[in-house]
Formats: sequence, C-alpha cells, structure tokens
Amino acid sequence: MRKEKDKVKVIPLGGLGEIGKNLTVIEYKNDIIVIDCGMSFPDADMLGIDIVIPDITYLKKNIDRVRGIFLTHGHEDHIGALPYVLKEINVPVYGTKLTLGIVESKLREHNLNDVVKLKCVKAKDVIKLDSMSVEFIRTSHSIADSTALAIHTPIGIIFHTGDFKVDYTPIDGSVIDFARLAELGKKGVILMLADSTNVERPGYTMSERTVGTTFQKFFSLAKSRIIVATFASNIHRIQQVITAAEKYDRKVAISGRSMENIMEVAMNLGYIDIKKNTLINIDNINRYPGNRIVIITTGSQGEPMSALSRMAASEHKKVNIIPGDTIIISANPIPGNEKLVSGVINQLFKKGAEVIYEALADVHVSGHACQEELKLIHTLVKPKFFMPVHGEYRHLKQHKDLAVSLGMPSNNVIIADNGDVIEVSRDSIKKTGTVVSGQIFVDGLGVGDVGNIVLRDRRHLSQDGILTVVITIEKQTGTVIAGPDIISRGFVYVRESEDLMEEAKELVRGALNECEEKHITEWASIKSNVKEVLRSFLYEKTKRKPMILPIIMEI
Amino acid sequence: MRKEKDKVKVIPLGGLGEIGKNLTVIEYKNDIIVIDCGMSFPDADMLGIDIVIPDITYLKKNIDRVRGIFLTHGHEDHIGALPYVLKEINVPVYGTKLTLGIVESKLREHNLNDVVKLKCVKAKDVIKLDSMSVEFIRTSHSIADSTALAIHTPIGIIFHTGDFKVDYTPIDGSVIDFARLAELGKKGVILMLADSTNVERPGYTMSERTVGTTFQKFFSLAKSRIIVATFASNIHRIQQVITAAEKYDRKVAISGRSMENIMEVAMNLGYIDIKKNTLINIDNINRYPGNRIVIITTGSQGEPMSALSRMAASEHKKVNIIPGDTIIISANPIPGNEKLVSGVINQLFKKGAEVIYEALADVHVSGHACQEELKLIHTLVKPKFFMPVHGEYRHLKQHKDLAVSLGMPSNNVIIADNGDVIEVSRDSIKKTGTVVSGQIFVDGLGVGDVGNIVLRDRRHLSQDGILTVVITIEKQTGTVIAGPDIISRGFVYVRESEDLMEEAKELVRGALNECEEKHITEWASIKSNVKEVLRSFLYEKTKRKPMILPIIMEI
Repeated sequence: MRKEKDKVKVIPLGGLGEIGKNLTVIEYKNDIIVIDCGMSFPDADMLGIDIVIPDITYLKKNIDRVRGIFLTHGHEDHIGALPYVLKEINVPVYGTKLTLGIVESKLREHNLNDVVKLKCVKAKDVIKLDSMSVEFIRTSHSIADSTALAIHTPIGIIFHTGDFKVDYTPIDGSVIDFARLAELGKKGVILMLADSTNVERPGYTMSERTVGTTFQKFFSLAKSRIIVATFASNIHRIQQVITAAEKYDRKVAISGRSMENIMEVAMNLGYIDIKKNTLINIDNINRYPGNRIVIITTGSQGEPMSALSRMAASEHKKVNIIPGDTIIISANPIPGNEKLVSGVINQLFKKGAEVIYEALADVHVSGHACQEELKLIHTLVKPKFFMPVHGEYRHLKQHKDLAVSLGMPSNNVIIADNGDVIEVSRDSIKKTGTVVSGQIFVDGLGVGDVGNIVLRDRRHLSQDGILTVVITIEKQTGTVIAGPDIISRGFVYVRESEDLMEEAKELVRGALNECEEKHITEWASIKSNVKEVLRSFLYEKTKRKPMILPIIMEI
Repeated sequence: MRKEKDKVKVIPLGGLGEIGKNLTVIEYKNDIIVIDCGMSFPDADMLGIDIVIPDITYLKKNIDRVRGIFLTHGHEDHIGALPYVLKEINVPVYGTKLTLGIVESKLREHNLNDVVKLKCVKAKDVIKLDSMSVEFIRTSHSIADSTALAIHTPIGIIFHTGDFKVDYTPIDGSVIDFARLAELGKKGVILMLADSTNVERPGYTMSERTVGTTFQKFFSLAKSRIIVATFASNIHRIQQVITAAEKYDRKVAISGRSMENIMEVAMNLGYIDIKKNTLINIDNINRYPGNRIVIITTGSQGEPMSALSRMAASEHKKVNIIPGDTIIISANPIPGNEKLVSGVINQLFKKGAEVIYEALADVHVSGHACQEELKLIHTLVKPKFFMPVHGEYRHLKQHKDLAVSLGMPSNNVIIADNGDVIEVSRDSIKKTGTVVSGQIFVDGLGVGDVGNIVLRDRRHLSQDGILTVVITIEKQTGTVIAGPDIISRGFVYVRESEDLMEEAKELVRGALNECEEKHITEWASIKSNVKEVLRSFLYEKTKRKPMILPIIMEI
C-alpha cells in the first residue's frame, strides 16, 4: 500500500493580485498557522468604505486547527485586520516587541486588549507547534523590528520574506540576518514566498540613512521652524529627524494623533534614542524662537483631516504656517493620493513656506527590495519552489520572470490568487483547489453589511443623484389623492429647475392615468411605468440618469 | 497734463493654479484677444461631472471687443472648451492646419461647424488687428503643428510659449524656431508667459525620436501581434508606429473612436506619411498572420470604456487578446489614472500577453520642457517681465525661482491666479484687480447647472446613501393617516436590516406623537424633529450618516 505523499498547503487569503490585506495560511495536517492579518484601503469606486479586510470564512470553519497569527511587522497592511479577525477567531498573536506594541494600542481602541493573547518574540526565536515550528528572522523595512519567517515543516522549510529591503546601514544597526538566510539556503528551502512590491524597479533601494543626510542638509540651512511630515510608523525616519534636531539644537514637538500614539509606544519600548529635554509639548512651541523648533507631523499623504492638511488650510489649532517655515514631506504619495498631496503642497507654498518634497530632494526611500536585492535573496535562499507574494498580477508575473532569469525552472514558480489552495510536497507544487476568499468592507460599525448592491447604489447616487416621486393612493378605489410630489437631491439645482419638475409631475400624472385606464393596479407595475416615463424624459432633457425612487402610500 | 501710461492687461481665466482649462485674455484699449480655450477633467470629488470649462463671464460682458481666439495647439486642455464658449461668444478662431482640423471635427459633433469662422494660419503668419498683431511661431510638443504666440502691442512684445519642449530631432523635421525667438529677444520682449508643467524635472526632456528607437527594438523581437496604445492626438507617436510597422512588414489597423477620428483628420491634412497598402480595416486583421499586424488603439489611460480596456476585459468585438500578443502602452498615467492603467496591465498579463509600459522601457516621453529647456527659452527670449503659466501653484512658484536663478529680479516675476487683472506697462507689472473667473461644470447637457450644492449632495449620497421617510397627514387634524414608510438606498442591505428599519419607524412614530402633544404643526419643525431623531439613532447603530429626506404628504 502506497503511503500518501506528505504535503503542506499554502492558502493566500489576501495580498495576491493586490497591494495590501496580506494574510497567508500555512497548513500541515492538524496545524494551521496564519502569517499576517492586514487591511487595505478602499479603491476609488468603493464609495463610503473605511477599510477592506480579508474574508476569513476558511479560518472560521477550521478554527480548531488555527494555532496562531504570526506577524512579520507592524504596518497596517499586515496587522490592520486583527481587531476584526480576532473577534471571529481569538487565537494567540505572535510578533516582535514593537509590532505587538502597535497591535496593543490598536486592540485597546477596540476594547480587545484584555481578551487577546499577545506573545512577544524576538529575532531568532522559534515557536514550536505540534508539527511545525516558526522561526523569526531579522530583516530591514520602513518600520523597525521587522522579520521574515521560516516555517519548519516535515516536508522542508517554507521561507516568507515579509516586507523587506536590504539596508547595509540601518538606523538601529541590526542588518538583515544574511548568515541565517544562507544557512537556511544550505539546509534546503522547499518554498519561498517573497515580497514583489518593487520588482519593477531596477537596482537597489537606497539606505534609510541617506534620508538622514538630506535632513541634516536642510536643517543646517533652515532659518526658522522645520516641520517634517512622514508615516507615523516609520520609527527610523522619526529617529533621524530627532537626531538632526539635536545636532542643530532644536526642540521636537509631535503633531497628529497617530504620530503621538506611535511615539508613545516606541519611546516606552525603547525604540527611540532621544535626550531628556528634546521633546516638548506642541502647546509650548511658541516659547522658543523658530530656529529652535522641529515639528514632526502626520499628513504626508495629504489626508484631508490630518495635522499637516489642517496646518496648510489654517485650520490647525496650534500650528500656524508662516513665511520662513520649512516643510519637509518625507514620503512619496501612495498611488491615488497624488492630487491630495499636491493640494497641500500648493497651500503651503501660498503661505510663503518652503516645501521640500520627493520631486525636489531625496527626502524618502522605499521600504521594499528592488530587483538587485531580490536577486540577492533568491540566490541566498535558493528555494526549490517559488511563489511571489505582495503585489498585483503584474508584479507577481515580473517576479516570476526575475526568478526564472536566475535559473529557476518556470514550472517551479507558481503565480497564485487569493483563495487558491497550493499543495507543496518535496518534489511538486500545484494548485489543487480554492477556498472562499474576498473583500469584506468595513463601513462605520458595519463589517460586511455593505456589499455590491449597496456600492452599486452609492455609485449611481454619486453620478446623477436621486429623484423621489411620492403618490398617495386610496386603497379601495385606487384613486390618487395626493401627489405626485417630486423631490430631488444631487441631480439639478432645485430652484432653477422648477419647469423641469413641473413637466415631470405632469408626465407622472399621465402615466398614472394610463395605468388607471388600463386597470393596472399592481404597485410594481405602476412604479415601473412611472420610472420609465421619468427616466426617458430626464435623459432626453439632461442626458443624466438619476436614480428614480417611486413611493406609493396607501390609505 | 500727464498722459496716462500705456498699458496692456493680461487676464488669465484658466490654467493658473491648475493643470488644464487654459485660457488667457490679452487686452489693449479696444482690442481683446483670447489665447487658447481649454477644458479640464473633473477632480475626484466632482462627482458625475463630465468636464470643467472656464467661466467666461468677462468675455461675454466685453464681447464687442473680442477679436478672436488664438490657439497654440490642438490638445483638449487648449481647445476643449471651444464648443461651449463659441455658443456664448461666436468670434473667429485662429490656428494651424492640424489644430483647426481637430477643432472642426469637434465642432461638427456639436453642430457648430457651419456657424463658426475658422481661420487657418501657418507658422510665421502674423494676424493684424487694430492695435495689436499676433504672430505664430513654430514649437515642438506632443502634438504636431504646435505654436507659440508673439503678441506685438504698443508697449512691446508679449510672448506666450504655449505648451512646448525643445526637440532637436522632431519627427516632422521642423524644429522650434530658435532664430525667431532670438530675434524677438533682441528686439525686446516686455513679458513672457511660459509653460510650467515640467519645471520640477531637472535636465532635458528626451526627443520624441527615442520612442521610435524603442518601438523598433520591440517590433524586431515580437513574434506575433503588436498592439500600441497611445494618445490619439500624438500624431508623431502614431507616425513612429507606422514607420516601425512598415520597416518590419506589418499592416496597421486602428481601434477606438477618437483614434479613428484623428487619423482621418491627420491623413486628410497630410500629417501622416504612410504607404498605400499599410492601413487595413480592423475587421480584416485576422486575414493576416499575427506577425504581420500592428493595432494602434486608444485606452493608454485605462479609461474604462476605451478600446484597450475592452480588449483587456474580453469585451472588444474585434480584438481578442491571446498569448503571444505584445502590448505597448506608450504613455504615462496622468495623475489619478494610475490604478486604472494598472488594472488594464494586470488583465493583459493574465491573458498571457507581454505588456511593455513606462516602468519597463522608454515607451513614452513628455511633451513639456524640463528645467534646462526652460532656461534656454528664458535666455533666448530675455523678457523684462515674466509670468509663469500652465501649472499648479507649486509649479508657478518653482518657475519663478528658476527665472530668478537666471538673474531676473524677483519683483519682475508675477505669480497670478485665474481672474487676476495684470497690468503691464513699459516699466511695470502689477495686479490691479480681479474679474469673475472659476469652474463651470458640464454634466450631460447641462452647462453650469450643477454647482456646489448639487456636488455636496452627491458626495453625501456617495458616502452613506439616503434614507427617505414618507408620512401622509390629514390636513385638517394633523393626524398621521399613513406611514411612516422608510426606504433606503446605498445605506445598508435592506433585507438584512429589517430590525433596524422597524426600530427607526418606531422612533419616527414617537417623534410624530411628541410633535402632536406639543402642538408642533409646522412642517419644517416636524421634519427637522424626524431628521434629528433618525440621524442620532442611525449614527449610534452604524456610525454612518446617510442623507435623511423626510417627506410629508397632506390630504
């Protein structure tokens, strides 16, 4: 009797064919582990949606086997879905100190901090489960305390890079653990899953330290206040601002709620190196001359309610932009945010500030590996099979091409999609099925209660507005005894369109009369007649298609 | 008695503080000339708007003095508002042959081609008006037959660059007229208005011809069909595709309505150099093997209804993407379109096609001058005063800095805004007032009937939908005799929210009873009570704020 071949299942539930909501399931017999639990931001057509999280139906069905969620680092696209997912499956969460610090403050907002088991690890730690063990390995990224994961399974090692770059001179001095990667490569890695975000960029990502050099240059030149906007989670960037501030004898104030939160977490956990008197309260900035002040703020993406946007619009209670201020936007606009960022830059310039941004100086570096770094990792880890992750299809495809250019057989690379079940054995990798996967929309308190129909309606409403027609009918006779009344919103200026509305009412009356004559008494038919006559009239008059909502009241 | 100083007024009505809808007024005593008449695309928050055009109230008021509209080139942001503006002020339109060819086909769609006077000019032509004359000067840009304008006025020459780049090897061989620019500079230019689009980019823009080299490389490699997507108006780009196709013995088919229109105009006017049998009908592409075919198509911006998007989505009637196809997207995404373009690239890759785009190869060059080209023009034209145009504030500011770095006194540069009245004399430039200016929204057939209130409602509707509450009340007694009925759209799934709606109705009944008890009989007060009770209930339950529309019917 032949023994069934030993197999590990890899099931991505997010992060493939998209940037964001990373979540990968690794499964061997009775053990399921989850790598990361991220959210993504809504696309432009997901109107009114706050965030998007992965569909975890599969995990809920197999909850008895889920051993824990293993976090590679503390970015939203890797931890942002935790509060929602943990409400459904309360399993232990493993991560490094800073990662869990950020998670904890997030869980507190959702009143979940007491019920969730957070298990703090450090690089080189190995968590042993029944049939697998998970090893945390130091990497570099645009947030401190980032890790890759080596999953030791009975069929071999599965290596997941997490998000990473190669930085030979990282701010905290702890370089990516090349020695361990080489060891794993020597031992034999069966499957690598690697970050594809920057696969289209040739060459190397610059070291985070280059940004510090730019800061020092502008700090040495600035004659008045300096305001630096960056991602709150980029502790190393913040550290470099603080270092430059101390060098040029400036106090540092913090602005923006998420920046304050992260600073508190990072300082409590010892991730920030700062002198005793450097930090001041934002309320006290005016006690110092401009050339002794640096403000670190949120808003590098031009988010309308962020601190920097409020400063630019003169709506910030504590910081008023004046000529002579130097504003450094230390971030690139995420695709989709270009116009917002540009708007903030324009406003700041108009107020007489100097604005330094990516088009003008090296004030940002990416956190993701470019082509040459990816080649280095592939060459060190030497996996037998490869599955590109973290990217749209174009990135995954090009990451495959990169692997093949390094000598990997094309058949050993699998481009998967969310929900695919990938089975890996010692000598094969293949897709064997699919599980439920998808996007769950979070809108206010609702998780999953807004779906495609609601979104379709919002899109319709957003384009041409709505027109409500109300008629009161006597039940017995079917006679119209009040209305039609027509009320519109988002369609035309009501005051300037009285004639149009009068004509519309007349047409509705006509449609109702016709229904009466033809003895049409079903509401659905009456409504659809009214709708049709209005739709074609309004389209002819305006070439617009508002949503038409006929309401019949019966007395 | 002192004679009043001779002055020319320059009044930008569009194109300042923004990219698009370029329109500049130049005025001397009894003569007004208009330079360009462009449209812009709506921002993301201008929901449902088709295009945006400049407010020309000022021109309507002064129609008797308007001598004509002078077009620098045929791009939409310079000619797109013509059909709307000419309906209000039917003045002669001057432009080069290709520019007017494109204008004519646009006017035909609006049934205006018979009523508008189009006056065709060529480079070096001078149009004499009473007190001014307008000289057309050859430039290079991403559309053929582009010009700058020199306005000869009694106080000196005003030079407007139009959109331009410096291309020493343009496809049509006719280089920017440096000799004439130098002559004007020698004669003395009082004021220059110059394109600021690319002022943030150091160095030079590459020649259009470099794209041709890239085309030839990929044409020599492609084993099957080649599909090139680009801007329809980029005749030189299209010419280079045709040249490469003929070199590699491929037939050329055209796809997409605007591409077909422009090709017809350009071929009729002699702007395309093509062999007799190169062009084939798109219906006939399957009569040839793949390696004998090139398709030139619209859709380089990922526009959802464009030909390329339909091919990518398998919705194109005549072109079905198959493995082996090479698709070249010969354009950069315009800010805001990145996600659309990316989506199309992903779909094409999934179909097994090779996709070549800006991240991977030099398949596009800009049409606008970078810093070194701008310096060249400033140095040749040597204007006394300078007003940067075509750009957001950040671009205008940096163009000012560039001029000052070349030695121009800071006070001689004016950063203006749309609607500013700039008075120029032989020895001064200053802002002396403002005229009405702004954005007019075109939505379907409506021009200007959608304003801020309608847009505000559309934004509200787009975020959380609408909830309509209908009540029928007996006029005499004020008793509720039908309802409340509640109907929502774009708020929650109706089926899954029955309890929520029942609770909401109950609250409305309560509010109505309270009104009755307190003898509140005014509709406005009843409505606002109902609204308030629903608003706070729904926000508490869902953290959403749908539009609430109470309707009271009286019988």
